Amino acid sequence: MHWITVLRTASFQTQHLAVQFRILRLFSSHFPNQVTEDAEKQLSHQQNAGASKGNLILKVPKGTRDFSPKQMAIREKIFSTIISCFKRHGAVTIDTPVFELKELLLENYDEETKLTYDLKDQGGEMLSLRYDLTVPFARYLAMNKIKRCKRYHIAKVYRRDNPSIKRGRFREFIQCDFDIAGQYDPMIPDAECLKVMHEILTALQVGDFIIKINDRRILQGIVTICGIPEIKFERICSTLDKLDKVTWEEVKNEMIIEDGISPKCVDRISEYVQLHGGPCLVEKLLKDPKLVQNRLAMEGLEDMKLLFEYLSLFGITDQVSLHLSLARGLDYYTGVIYEAVLLCQKHSHLNEALSLGSVAGGGRYDELVAKFDSKGYKVPCVGLSIGVERIFSIIEQNNEMAKEKIRTTETQVLVATPQKNFLAFRMKFISELWNAGIKAEMLYKKNPRLLEQLQYCEETGIPLAIIVGEQELNDGVVKLRDVVTREEVNIPQENLIEEIKRRLEKYNI
Amino acid sequence: MHWITVLRTASFQTQHLAVQFRILRLFSSHFPNQVTEDAEKQLSHQQNAGASKGNLILKVPKGTRDFSPKQMAIREKIFSTIISCFKRHGAVTIDTPVFELKELLLENYDEETKLTYDLKDQGGEMLSLRYDLTVPFARYLAMNKIKRCKRYHIAKVYRRDNPSIKRGRFREFIQCDFDIAGQYDPMIPDAECLKVMHEILTALQVGDFIIKINDRRILQGIVTICGIPEIKFERICSTLDKLDKVTWEEVKNEMIIEDGISPKCVDRISEYVQLHGGPCLVEKLLKDPKLVQNRLAMEGLEDMKLLFEYLSLFGITDQVSLHLSLARGLDYYTGVIYEAVLLCQKHSHLNEALSLGSVAGGGRYDELVAKFDSKGYKVPCVGLSIGVERIFSIIEQNNEMAKEKIRTTETQVLVATPQKNFLAFRMKFISELWNAGIKAEMLYKKNPRLLEQLQYCEETGIPLAIIVGEQELNDGVVKLRDVVTREEVNIPQENLIEEIKRRLEKYNI
Repeated sequence: MHWITVLRTASFQTQHLAVQFRILRLFSSHFPNQVTEDAEKQLSHQQNAGASKGNLILKVPKGTRDFSPKQMAIREKIFSTIISCFKRHGAVTIDTPVFELKELLLENYDEETKLTYDLKDQGGEMLSLRYDLTVPFARYLAMNKIKRCKRYHIAKVYRRDNPSIKRGRFREFIQCDFDIAGQYDPMIPDAECLKVMHEILTALQVGDFIIKINDRRILQGIVTICGIPEIKFERICSTLDKLDKVTWEEVKNEMIIEDGISPKCVDRISEYVQLHGGPCLVEKLLKDPKLVQNRLAMEGLEDMKLLFEYLSLFGITDQVSLHLSLARGLDYYTGVIYEAVLLCQKHSHLNEALSLGSVAGGGRYDELVAKFDSKGYKVPCVGLSIGVERIFSIIEQNNEMAKEKIRTTETQVLVATPQKNFLAFRMKFISELWNAGIKAEMLYKKNPRLLEQLQYCEETGIPLAIIVGEQELNDGVVKLRDVVTREEVNIPQENLIEEIKRRLEKYNI
Repeated sequence: MHWITVLRTASFQTQHLAVQFRILRLFSSHFPNQVTEDAEKQLSHQQNAGASKGNLILKVPKGTRDFSPKQMAIREKIFSTIISCFKRHGAVTIDTPVFELKELLLENYDEETKLTYDLKDQGGEMLSLRYDLTVPFARYLAMNKIKRCKRYHIAKVYRRDNPSIKRGRFREFIQCDFDIAGQYDPMIPDAECLKVMHEILTALQVGDFIIKINDRRILQGIVTICGIPEIKFERICSTLDKLDKVTWEEVKNEMIIEDGISPKCVDRISEYVQLHGGPCLVEKLLKDPKLVQNRLAMEGLEDMKLLFEYLSLFGITDQVSLHLSLARGLDYYTGVIYEAVLLCQKHSHLNEALSLGSVAGGGRYDELVAKFDSKGYKVPCVGLSIGVERIFSIIEQNNEMAKEKIRTTETQVLVATPQKNFLAFRMKFISELWNAGIKAEMLYKKNPRLLEQLQYCEETGIPLAIIVGEQELNDGVVKLRDVVTREEVNIPQENLIEEIKRRLEKYNI
């Protein structure tokens, strides 16, 4: 019999999961092995309400998570890849507070404001947690009257969205943003953003990908020539944005029923937005008899042509493709937009939702800074954001599949002893190693067994051990052990640091 | 005439600084140069209330700040020093959400709960921003039933305290914590924490420092033998904790008047808490006729003796001293406690408040994890926290004094041209450099002037420039320029990457 069923029945389908939890605890103290960990997890997962004092329920807030040392090791490797690319492209970094004045955020996310986390009014300013890093960046530029800036920013953002751990969607998640602000010659910074995105996705080895690009001006031109009022443009963009989750038929229906577009217009749009291709498609559209009459669309297409020239110089056109259906959800985009998606064949072991979503996105937003500036001074911007949570989930799953062992520390040497009462010597030796910059550990025991010490090396991946006993002390040497080969050699004490450094360099540890 | 005076008068000493701000803006649009930036800053600093839409006031929330690229460069250098020490000592790292269930925090900060930031009730759980990293760590250990863990955690914490920018006290600030959890032989992890603190403060080069240590058990013993009821112990600790801000006379008065201790008892305590010294003081206290009768104090002193032995093996006793007045503010400490303070003579140029405060602290907290565990399972912990905001202020001021130039990017090469219509070649070259892992920039202009390009190198500290023009292209070479020496040599195109890498390695850039 499955205990979770008993519990469910026992609590009469009540919404008070906290109560279920207490019952679960009660049961588990009597039948500790009968209540599966899964059941506990399942309840813990669903349970939202807090519990009374003295019966504290331990959990993280809904839609958030802790990162374990192993997860952090993976996460830091990803960050280091991303940051080294951002630095390779000459970006500075800034930091902004985790919350902003609520009214500064209100201005910029029309529909999304209901998803921001507000802080309680405890007397003082009304604050909200940041929803992305783009708006704080624009606020920073306007506030400091900065006209040019290439910066990256890696930080947590907050959305009271429906979390889905499986799809890598959290309420607290990290964004890795790279943006170029300033008035420059057309499409040069835009091309660099795509190059940055391409370099990062290649370096992260998440498998094949393509970068879909489009331009808000082309889209707007299409909407206009299809006879749809301009006022509906942003509605249509957010409907189109659902295309990676639902079918084209469903999007069409939504346009007709919810956005109130006539079926005829939807058919016209549909002809365009299903097109995708490279520079040839751009050439074709530049000659499209209807589009040529739309100034905005032509501007977008001319820029798109230039962009493809630059991308070709950067050698990345193979993985970039114009997709007229790409719309991007956020309102602030004004020009080129892009989104990178993984091609799924390489990820058959991943759950489908994970493998199909976008892993990076961005675009040009030329009006956002002006919104914050008292005189409306314009600072054109273009940028990108790496969807690091989804990438993290993919790499974590890949590692699990490959049963790859991940080190959570970088310790190079364990200071060990086979004898009792050698704590003082271990302490003296380890202190010397630390002072020489060598990463070293010892067990926090007065008299640890040698076997235990060597096992610790193997478990945690420490490559070297130095072993000091009475014999070694008398001979003025230290035993240096290679943990993998189990080879041991005596090294004169005075050469120890040098010898360790030599080995670490040789094995590139 | 000073405009700020006019404004102050104009607004009739009103509290509505937002109004002053608007008047300031109004004035400044008419007399742009007459309103000093300082006046604007002064108002901006004082102004707390938001402003109505259409007249957006740009500021960060009270007690928080943005970090500029230059500040981030300093900050990252500090972090890198701290993290490399934490890693040298074999620590893993974890991450936890920025907010926790409110009730989990409520349990642990008695008086401080009024200083936590609460999130608004938007339906769902009651959440608060974390107040420190210690309580989330204890929650993490208990929740995952982890018995042993040496971890570091660098993250922002939040306190609705009275901010003081001059003293480096903010409402959003970063903590750098290192903790060792687990049941081990006495004082071995404690000694390592002090070694870690010592290594970090030495490496950061913030000047001379001492680490004051004490033990909550010794303090409690003293309080008891002085005839003070145990119930007043925590009050006395927080009164004593003010000693670095006020005089001993003031502390005595507070004990008598506010804590309700009799003057006689205060005199008795006063004899003890003014003592400070090294191992000799420990020996003396171990023989103190009154203290020997107190079991708790003797335990503390025996451990202190052992700790000094270990610190001597680590070679750091010179900078560690037992101060019986050290109490630490937080309630959760149960054993040894410590705090590092800078010695001020080296910082005469710093403002006094900054130079005198503590820059690191920590101690043993053996009961905190048990508070979260449903069965009260005990996981003893000891740890430390580096006061990175204060250290940041000191290093920032030192840099300003020394007029040290700080690079905000790591760009190694600028790809430049003396000729028009060479954008395509620059793009091809820079792409090759990026693909070879070289940090490179180019100006985002179709036809930049050579002077402008070289000035950009000098301003931003880029050490190398490659210059491609028609002559070079025809000769199959690239001109490589050393920005500092202004020396130029022609390099065959096919050797370019290799030559750049050779030079970067040689100059260790």
